[in-house]
Amino acid sequence: MKKEMTMVRIYLREADPGRHNGLLKEIMAILHDEHRVHGVTVFRGISGFGRHGEIHSADLLRLNVHLPLVIECFDEPEIVDAAIEALGNLVPEGHLLRWSVMCECSPTASDG
Amino acid sequence: MKKEMTMVRIYLREADPGRHNGLLKEIMAILHDEHRVHGVTVFRGISGFGRHGEIHSADLLRLNVHLPLVIECFDEPEIVDAAIEALGNLVPEGHLLRWSVMCECSPTASDG
Amino acid sequence: MKKEMTMVRIYLREADPGRHNGLLKEIMAILHDEHRVHGVTVFRGISGFGRHGEIHSADLLRLNVHLPLVIECFDEPEIVDAAIEALGNLVPEGHLLRWSVMCECSPTASDG
Repeated sequence: MKKEMTMVRIYLREADPGRHNGLLKEIMAILHDEHRVHGVTVFRGISGFGRHGEIHSADLLRLNVHLPLVIECFDEPEIVDAAIEALGNLVPEGHLLRWSVMCECSPTASDG
Repeated sequence: MKKEMTMVRIYLREADPGRHNGLLKEIMAILHDEHRVHGVTVFRGISGFGRHGEIHSADLLRLNVHLPLVIECFDEPEIVDAAIEALGNLVPEGHLLRWSVMCECSPTASDG
Repeated sequence: MKKEMTMVRIYLREADPGRHNGLLKEIMAILHDEHRVHGVTVFRGISGFGRHGEIHSADLLRLNVHLPLVIECFDEPEIVDAAIEALGNLVPEGHLLRWSVMCECSPTASDG
């Protein structure tokens, strides 16, 4: 069985200044607790650029300082729409991407 | 030269219960040994939700316990189709996504 | 406000042989310094296959040896086109993927 779903990737940084300290937790709470979006996973990058062009890297001297974080999730389009709506302006402008994906759902898959 | 390819992302957890202990290895063997799918890469997330809503996180007390894993690969659509078929019900229902991508293949690229 | 953008993923390895030692830096310089592509992030995989089929994994004995790296970025299609053109044959053949995404830009988003 195949089903069209929407993939979302939200780009943040660890320890973003100001209110952003708890931004990851706030966003996770909305995606998970309130909207039960499927497949929420957080990835940490090893290097990235901030909006002002500065480089954030993990190296021996500056481990995990302001590293980029990506929150990824996927679900049916209406569920994603509602969750994005609920995020309001928590996500900095231009930091949320979405695209259509096909979910391969084997009807006999183990439910492990 | 551009070529349409199919991107796949498969979502697992480290140490999934039951048969899932070796699930990553089983899937990698099918994708790599049997079907020679291109561009197979495994990523580890730092946090994610299980199917029952519990949170799996990397923190100081629970390092790398049940963290999410993503197997990503891409290849020509027919090769991906055959590999997914071969995966059968190894992948838990709703944990495999695919979408079309364009592969930019520079004909003069270094083969380094 | 929604805007169509192009997502790019480039697949490399740490310590690729030959000129590839500084390949990540060279590519980052072009994407960032010269073309100011938005949302450049580097991820490190924990396992992957080289082009000759050998497995590269992070384990206790071989930490971070030849692990796969992914450079991800996204921006308006014309900016991405120009940046890819500028990369020339830095990226090994078949190691650059692109696809269309929708960027959700909240007009009232905090600029944090």
